[in-house]
Amino acid sequence: MKVGILGAGQLARMMILTTKHLGIDFVLMCQEVTATTRDLAEHIVADFSDQQALAAFCDAVDVVTFESENIEAEAVDFILSRRPLFPGRKALLTAQDRLLEKRLFNQLGIATNDYMAVDCFDDVLDAAEQFSLPLVLKARRLGYDGKHQYRIADQADLDALRDNDWSGFLAEAFVDFSHEVSIIGVRNGEGAIRCYDLCHNHHQRGILRETKNVIDDPLFSAAELALTQVMRCFDYVGVLTIEFFVANGTLVANEIAPRVHNSGHWTIEGAKVSQFENHVRAIVGLPLGAVTSLTSCTMTNAIGQMPERQPVMAQGGYYHDYQKAPRPGRKLGHVTFIDNVY
Amino acid sequence: MKVGILGAGQLARMMILTTKHLGIDFVLMCQEVTATTRDLAEHIVADFSDQQALAAFCDAVDVVTFESENIEAEAVDFILSRRPLFPGRKALLTAQDRLLEKRLFNQLGIATNDYMAVDCFDDVLDAAEQFSLPLVLKARRLGYDGKHQYRIADQADLDALRDNDWSGFLAEAFVDFSHEVSIIGVRNGEGAIRCYDLCHNHHQRGILRETKNVIDDPLFSAAELALTQVMRCFDYVGVLTIEFFVANGTLVANEIAPRVHNSGHWTIEGAKVSQFENHVRAIVGLPLGAVTSLTSCTMTNAIGQMPERQPVMAQGGYYHDYQKAPRPGRKLGHVTFIDNVY
Repeated sequence: MKVGILGAGQLARMMILTTKHLGIDFVLMCQEVTATTRDLAEHIVADFSDQQALAAFCDAVDVVTFESENIEAEAVDFILSRRPLFPGRKALLTAQDRLLEKRLFNQLGIATNDYMAVDCFDDVLDAAEQFSLPLVLKARRLGYDGKHQYRIADQADLDALRDNDWSGFLAEAFVDFSHEVSIIGVRNGEGAIRCYDLCHNHHQRGILRETKNVIDDPLFSAAELALTQVMRCFDYVGVLTIEFFVANGTLVANEIAPRVHNSGHWTIEGAKVSQFENHVRAIVGLPLGAVTSLTSCTMTNAIGQMPERQPVMAQGGYYHDYQKAPRPGRKLGHVTFIDNVY
Repeated sequence: MKVGILGAGQLARMMILTTKHLGIDFVLMCQEVTATTRDLAEHIVADFSDQQALAAFCDAVDVVTFESENIEAEAVDFILSRRPLFPGRKALLTAQDRLLEKRLFNQLGIATNDYMAVDCFDDVLDAAEQFSLPLVLKARRLGYDGKHQYRIADQADLDALRDNDWSGFLAEAFVDFSHEVSIIGVRNGEGAIRCYDLCHNHHQRGILRETKNVIDDPLFSAAELALTQVMRCFDYVGVLTIEFFVANGTLVANEIAPRVHNSGHWTIEGAKVSQFENHVRAIVGLPLGAVTSLTSCTMTNAIGQMPERQPVMAQGGYYHDYQKAPRPGRKLGHVTFIDNVY
């Protein structure tokens, strides 16, 4: 069995490292080979728009998945003409567009904040009037880790952003949330669904810094219901993540990630079977593994620089170095601490 | 940090898969590249007697270890002239020779069965007279998984083996044991030692079939003491295993493996940090991880053929396929079941 992954970053790396023991081989398609995956799989180096390379990639594998939802529809359709692609087209294309995501949530009766598509500065002014300030503006497509996002707190912010190119943006009413959570679940081809414990997430400057799994969180059932609805709507196969704000004790759905997710890295050591292994199990048709938390965990991202390895490990931390070149704001690794085992 | 491993079998594979996340790269030296490690590391393909290749191997890495103790002293010395080699020369050369092992155990006050070096059939007859039948004969060197071993139960067995080449054999008094156990521990360069829970092992035809970790086994302390003595004697760095018979409720030391061991495969899922990761941590100078058992485990070897993947995984088994070509008597993979987590 050969699994093809579009992308060769840390998510691909962790998929390989956590499932290779099942006897699965991997082929990665990427624009550049780096130390993150160099030693772990075959690589096909090309842009996803290169159909000759895509064809060779498809020929080399039994099933295709991806580590990022930023894949053009043309590539998706080309792959689908040759191989199964999981998670599927609808999930991928919906998750690429914040407006489609919000509409889907609302169609399914899942609460979101108020939002409005904007395409010019007049639309921004309309949104400011309708939702009042502060207002959040996000690119509908290709935004992640806080990129292409603006928070408009007052008239001065508005004035400063007057000349931005606002085509393809989404205006969102500001949510006064107490904290952020995510739910990660897996669905297989027969429709069985398993959800990991709720993740409590702490972001800084739009980037996830820390996640704790919370066993028996009172919001788990509501989050699980939302995830289940979205998965069924997509006829989803693989791991899916939904991020929520928690405001006044209730969930406000924020966005969908149709893939393994940074807030689930604790599952490598903290759950019986990790999100990465369950994702691969689902897409190759192997039985799902248990998602039970073994213990409480805290996962901290290493952003811009790695923490020193010796002291982290001396304290019992699980140290994950993605072997990426350091760069400000870049996720280079993570550290997980688990409780109650020493 | 680059770790060189002599050998490219399942033990090398599991060392890589369980420690790659630490940001370590691996170079393997082996006589043949197979699917077991093909995608997981650089390979240098040559015999260990090829000093030009050994030199290139040493140049490519920071530290050298091995997955099998069958390495000639010349290669050991050549490597040591260029790079650190862990576990060290004394451990490796002692573990290559059953007679040296027994003598070491006895020097340290660790009980063994009675034994005698034999080199010809007359020596075998002497041993039969001194120890009485049944008698066990084992090649001093290069025996493993029951190879080059003979059990002599009666005069007919003796007669049938009269014309064997008995040079370099060891005769051992038969031990009427109730069961077999092993202890696996790790020692770092500062002399800190951590021992995993005692492993209860079941062999068939000389090959390990099944291991269970037994938490709080009453023989743990005695086994730990023996392991500690042997490690200190060798000034050992890395994972060491001692196998014992249990006869009349006491330990009878059988043999030393100066490496990660088949009876420790349960530690991948069943201990806080696996034997493989702790071995690599020790040899590269990283803090040792906790060896605590998370739960009770049963590891079953797949010998000659793999069990079907679907039913094993549907029951919650962790399925390890080494991607080796099937061959009768060959270890192709293993399956671990862990308790009390669903």
